[in-house]
Amino acid sequence: MSSFSIMATAKAVPEKIVTNDDLAQIMDTSDEWISRRTGIKERRIAVSETTTSLCAKVASQLLEKADVDANDIDFIIVGTMSSDYQTPSTASAVQGIIGAKNAIAFDINAACSGFVFGTYTLASLLNSKPNAKGIVIGGEQLSKLINWQDRTTAVLFGDGAGGMLVSNQGDGEILSTNLKNFGDKGEALLAGHMTGDEQFGETKDHTDHYFHMDGRGVFNFATKNVPVSIKEAAEDANIDLSDIKYFVLHQANARIIKSVARKVGVNADKFPININHYGNTAAASEPILLSEMVENGLITRGDIIALSGFGGGLTTGTIILRY
Amino acid sequence: MSSFSIMATAKAVPEKIVTNDDLAQIMDTSDEWISRRTGIKERRIAVSETTTSLCAKVASQLLEKADVDANDIDFIIVGTMSSDYQTPSTASAVQGIIGAKNAIAFDINAACSGFVFGTYTLASLLNSKPNAKGIVIGGEQLSKLINWQDRTTAVLFGDGAGGMLVSNQGDGEILSTNLKNFGDKGEALLAGHMTGDEQFGETKDHTDHYFHMDGRGVFNFATKNVPVSIKEAAEDANIDLSDIKYFVLHQANARIIKSVARKVGVNADKFPININHYGNTAAASEPILLSEMVENGLITRGDIIALSGFGGGLTTGTIILRY
Repeated sequence: MSSFSIMATAKAVPEKIVTNDDLAQIMDTSDEWISRRTGIKERRIAVSETTTSLCAKVASQLLEKADVDANDIDFIIVGTMSSDYQTPSTASAVQGIIGAKNAIAFDINAACSGFVFGTYTLASLLNSKPNAKGIVIGGEQLSKLINWQDRTTAVLFGDGAGGMLVSNQGDGEILSTNLKNFGDKGEALLAGHMTGDEQFGETKDHTDHYFHMDGRGVFNFATKNVPVSIKEAAEDANIDLSDIKYFVLHQANARIIKSVARKVGVNADKFPININHYGNTAAASEPILLSEMVENGLITRGDIIALSGFGGGLTTGTIILRY
Repeated sequence: MSSFSIMATAKAVPEKIVTNDDLAQIMDTSDEWISRRTGIKERRIAVSETTTSLCAKVASQLLEKADVDANDIDFIIVGTMSSDYQTPSTASAVQGIIGAKNAIAFDINAACSGFVFGTYTLASLLNSKPNAKGIVIGGEQLSKLINWQDRTTAVLFGDGAGGMLVSNQGDGEILSTNLKNFGDKGEALLAGHMTGDEQFGETKDHTDHYFHMDGRGVFNFATKNVPVSIKEAAEDANIDLSDIKYFVLHQANARIIKSVARKVGVNADKFPININHYGNTAAASEPILLSEMVENGLITRGDIIALSGFGGGLTTGTIILRY
């Protein structure tokens, strides 16, 4: 594996903050109920922003922070389950907006694991080309998939984007990867069902395009399989779990994160949480958190960190890297 | 680059055939008008099938034809712009259905170039792992995005899936790749616009989720940029265009294909066309055609072929490979 050096991280979130109390105004819920079960206090909801505009903002910041010219970007990958269009892809739109005219751009859909799957794919592509740079973004406007009449799911999700600009020159490197699909369990988390207008033959089941989640099923899946993914990745990297400074996990639920910490036997302090501010932003959650930790000086050069995504698919994915 | 050996190809299309005459019953159009402008005579439209079921059928056939166990598949990539769900991805659903429990699976969205972008990504992933096998599928149920009231676009598209099973052992290889995005031109082909229910703030522009195409713009884009992509790929592969036995192009329009043949200065016989049977099936069109050509003995071991996709994004992509 060639080098995988993160030159910059960035995030962009909508301006509008929606608190639990705001939600309690429009549905039968409460701050106490939501925060006790999920750890969420507020989330950002796109009003004027879109998946594309949030991702483009991240990309522009990345170029500026890394002091890299748009023409020097070889790849743009966006992990998303809430692209504004089925075509163009969000990545292609971002490529156009930032003027990265030499970049190959496409979206990856691996839902809540989209950032880890995207990072894995970017690493492979960077490995195939000498002296190359790429951008990987997780960006979501999940509010497009929210049924505001369904209090069991509406309180969970938020909008946002985060990403990183990576070079295959430099001291950073990926130490191990552990990605898995559990397609037989896919029905535990559904969203964005798309059907067309029938003209020919039978009427199809026009179920809605909103989130449908077997909350307990996903909770059990995550608390069982994410610890396995982390342990296997550490073993493959030939390091101890104690060598990992921070575990940057998908922010689906504070209780899942604490349970994973307990099961891998690591102090919960090493599993940072920002779901209180953003809710579950699917593919965007790890890069938003990573970006904040880098900004706050919690992650510095040479640190070993683990990125772990899990959710829709169902999927799990862990990447251990030296920052 | 390690070896890229296509062990099997397969296709699956819906049972229901919809002819131009059938369309003329429900909209103001005619067989003569459609076939003169596009080369399309009929297309398949999913009635009981879905994007997932078509892709799963392709994957099952690939395993059987290649005599490979599902457990030996390392990667499943589906190129699609018409996934049944935003989560799970089609690839993850296929992974579950065929029981490929060791496969990493995700969707790629690069619209009509999805199969070429997916093949490029699969090649990179296969290169990263010793003795590995992967499946790449282009699968679409574009009828979900068709506005049956819009005769300018409704007549163009169809449903179907095709794919290949590839090993990084053996004699096949990729000779060159040439992928490009033109994100600044993305608005020439829109589909699947997704917006949510507003709860907070301004009302958004709820345009429909159907195809919107600047037909002339896409035609001019393709006839200008696809020849460039093919010529550059041949030059990178260090071969003459005459060394390429067949050019397997995205089937968007028979006139585009003939124009591309003329511009690269190659006899049109080397640019096979099956759009008459299927219409434009986006990411599925090249693997459906490839599969039929292999089946008919037109492509045999050792042949050099070019795969070329183009369209939504906008994008172009050419891969030259030795079969």
